[in-house]
Amino acid sequence: MDSIDALVSLCKRRGFVFPSSEIYGGSRSAWDYGPLGVELKENVRRQWWRSMVQQRDDVVGLDSAVVLARQVWESTGHVEEFTDPLTECQSCHKRYRADHLIEAYEAKHGHEPTDGLSSLVCANCGTRGAFTEPKMFSGLMKTFLGAVEDESNLHYLRPETAQGIFINYKNVETAARKKPPFGIAQTGKSFRNEITPGNFIFRTREFEQMEMEFFVEPGTDEEWHEYWLNERWNWYLDLGLSEENLRRHEHPKDKLSHYSKRTVDIEYRFKFGGKEFDELEGIANRTDFDLSAHSRGSGVDLSYFDQAKGERWVPYVIEPAAGLTRSVLAFLIEAFDVDEAPNTKGGVDKRTVLRFDPRLAPVKVAVLPLSRNEKLSPKARELAADLRKRWVVDFDDAGAIGRRYRRADEIGTPFCVTVDFDTLDDDAVTVRDRDSMKQERVSLSQVESYLIERLPGC
Amino acid sequence: MDSIDALVSLCKRRGFVFPSSEIYGGSRSAWDYGPLGVELKENVRRQWWRSMVQQRDDVVGLDSAVVLARQVWESTGHVEEFTDPLTECQSCHKRYRADHLIEAYEAKHGHEPTDGLSSLVCANCGTRGAFTEPKMFSGLMKTFLGAVEDESNLHYLRPETAQGIFINYKNVETAARKKPPFGIAQTGKSFRNEITPGNFIFRTREFEQMEMEFFVEPGTDEEWHEYWLNERWNWYLDLGLSEENLRRHEHPKDKLSHYSKRTVDIEYRFKFGGKEFDELEGIANRTDFDLSAHSRGSGVDLSYFDQAKGERWVPYVIEPAAGLTRSVLAFLIEAFDVDEAPNTKGGVDKRTVLRFDPRLAPVKVAVLPLSRNEKLSPKARELAADLRKRWVVDFDDAGAIGRRYRRADEIGTPFCVTVDFDTLDDDAVTVRDRDSMKQERVSLSQVESYLIERLPGC
Repeated sequence: MDSIDALVSLCKRRGFVFPSSEIYGGSRSAWDYGPLGVELKENVRRQWWRSMVQQRDDVVGLDSAVVLARQVWESTGHVEEFTDPLTECQSCHKRYRADHLIEAYEAKHGHEPTDGLSSLVCANCGTRGAFTEPKMFSGLMKTFLGAVEDESNLHYLRPETAQGIFINYKNVETAARKKPPFGIAQTGKSFRNEITPGNFIFRTREFEQMEMEFFVEPGTDEEWHEYWLNERWNWYLDLGLSEENLRRHEHPKDKLSHYSKRTVDIEYRFKFGGKEFDELEGIANRTDFDLSAHSRGSGVDLSYFDQAKGERWVPYVIEPAAGLTRSVLAFLIEAFDVDEAPNTKGGVDKRTVLRFDPRLAPVKVAVLPLSRNEKLSPKARELAADLRKRWVVDFDDAGAIGRRYRRADEIGTPFCVTVDFDTLDDDAVTVRDRDSMKQERVSLSQVESYLIERLPGC
Repeated sequence: MDSIDALVSLCKRRGFVFPSSEIYGGSRSAWDYGPLGVELKENVRRQWWRSMVQQRDDVVGLDSAVVLARQVWESTGHVEEFTDPLTECQSCHKRYRADHLIEAYEAKHGHEPTDGLSSLVCANCGTRGAFTEPKMFSGLMKTFLGAVEDESNLHYLRPETAQGIFINYKNVETAARKKPPFGIAQTGKSFRNEITPGNFIFRTREFEQMEMEFFVEPGTDEEWHEYWLNERWNWYLDLGLSEENLRRHEHPKDKLSHYSKRTVDIEYRFKFGGKEFDELEGIANRTDFDLSAHSRGSGVDLSYFDQAKGERWVPYVIEPAAGLTRSVLAFLIEAFDVDEAPNTKGGVDKRTVLRFDPRLAPVKVAVLPLSRNEKLSPKARELAADLRKRWVVDFDDAGAIGRRYRRADEIGTPFCVTVDFDTLDDDAVTVRDRDSMKQERVSLSQVESYLIERLPGC
């Protein structure tokens, strides 16, 4: 797909993603997930949880608060260092992140601009070299708890879910009776006061993360880092992203975050304005930075006593940190396709189809009575109610059957089940496959098992 | 259970609920959900979603942003009216909600205090009549988006998920091709600057809601209200709350919220402080208040054109608004039990057991090799890995078998599967039921189907 405009339009029209607060003029910094979007997002989350927690015996889950004690963010340096370089075009007053301007230049020219921002052109007004000296701007969103808005009641919304995991490390280790190597996973909302939200749901001020902190013995960290790089890469492939749209990006040593020994991003070919690839997930070796910082900050010893070795050490941490909302966007872009389908005049029409892996498809089955008829409708409704016990099912009896197939294809429904007049005689239905558009006659008593076989893990 | 102390202690020890930011001194206004708590909470949410959205063809889902446009809260009067009466004991400076003080008095004496706050005693210091005149205090939590902390960038964290539904009403109606009567459901976090958070996870500054707005033709609203009262009441019963611990509380006409024609709470016997019952879910007839307020505020017409009648009307709304985190607490209290189990000396010991409905139990099956043995362990691990494809499974090989049963009972695991030395000969295992403690020998090849039959809907 050359532009995401067609996708954004489909997302709104069919109820995947709406501009937030649209009746009040909308906002480019927030989006709401509609009936199909919420199912798609939950399916991605569930697959992550299944693969990272449920199917493993060395990772457990957690769900910590959004507003943590203020000291959490002081100990880790977030209050001081969780900042972005803000610059403004003095001609049109549009604000930018200076690092993003440099990156965009690099992506286009293959090297950094030789004289920093002063040779760059404002994309908004076209003026060259009118950028202010960058100022560091805090990405933490503030709020006040309690009756008085003073310093003592100042709190921050979490900019990452990870710290909620680190401060619960001891509680989880004890309660779950785990010892390194083991991990703690959580999904949930994080909040960042982004200077330049944009590119649809790619960069927003509130967003959802899927993070896992894996605690290991120092010295085994590099090996575990490779392990998790492979695991996460394969997770995206397994759910349908193609290898040519993914790449690894190794952070250069001189650009690593202050807590990181090594960070590798898994990038996806989002193709946002001139930039081919952008971050989908960062997999960092955070060393013992966070646990040590919280040990110092809280006075509580977060080291681990290794009984086998008779040694005490602070675990190193490998962190696969994925964006849930970014993953949703990648799966949407990858699934979007336009091909051709036969029409009733013997020719072909263009059809839009979302080729989701069935596990991610928001609706698994559409039940379509051939016409609104007093005999077909109840039979079709009964079948839909039966299938609904297991899956998300659409019932659609409006318009020509070809149009209803188009509607189901456009939202990625893997199977359509048509109840027609023959059904009244042969107790069978026509099941149509989304991708091949092939149809098969299946007896009513076999429909469920036919679909179970073709919808594994759904 | 007479006190929730035993439950709070169990919740921390086993990893259901931890005090948030505990290593930094903790907070009574926030709690973190541990490995078991996050599974329990997700199970409650999934059952709600299943019953309210997936299994119905007249309700669809949504997931809107936490930070909406500020005008949303201005149009509905939240900025002006979302307030609580704050009073302070002048002797010890403890703050209270005046309405809660009055309610507590009423619950104890059966009538309101005759001279308001001035005859009441401070529970903290024992002083009588030292309360200040109540001042209205905003429950909205503020934050700033953008580079400058000024009035134009002031935003609020949502105090309820409902408004995200109302402002998306037209988008959903169009995209999902629905017409009244139909509903829009969402679950997620809300934030309120509570004056007196407390009673464990009952009242916290951030909490999770499960709300559904059901849009109906005016005139049919009272009937639909009764319908949803019954549906919601039955949902709690179906998942294990007992009828004697539930009651309906009809809000008196003179105490209704400004938007409500009638509100009925479903209350649960939480037994906090001298108060037997407290709110679990509120089911309100919100009339056309919200859609009309947003039509006026945004200038976008949110009325519905009824083609059959040739009339235009603004839908009335029935809102079953449940607390997810409160439901979790109610299910925990209901499940908590202490009975007796046989010990190895031929006597009986006390055992703690959480009698969760299997659909809510965080772990469905525990696999226990009788001893750590080179033949039993791999067989047991293989079985655990198999069962894990379908359910959350514990593997526990530490300590005496009786102790491991106690550990499984204490977290409400419905079934324990023991792999013993006979297994090596007969390829069978012992399956033990949590509640009856009865054991059955089941062949390895039948274990999965045995459990599927006994864990319906899991």
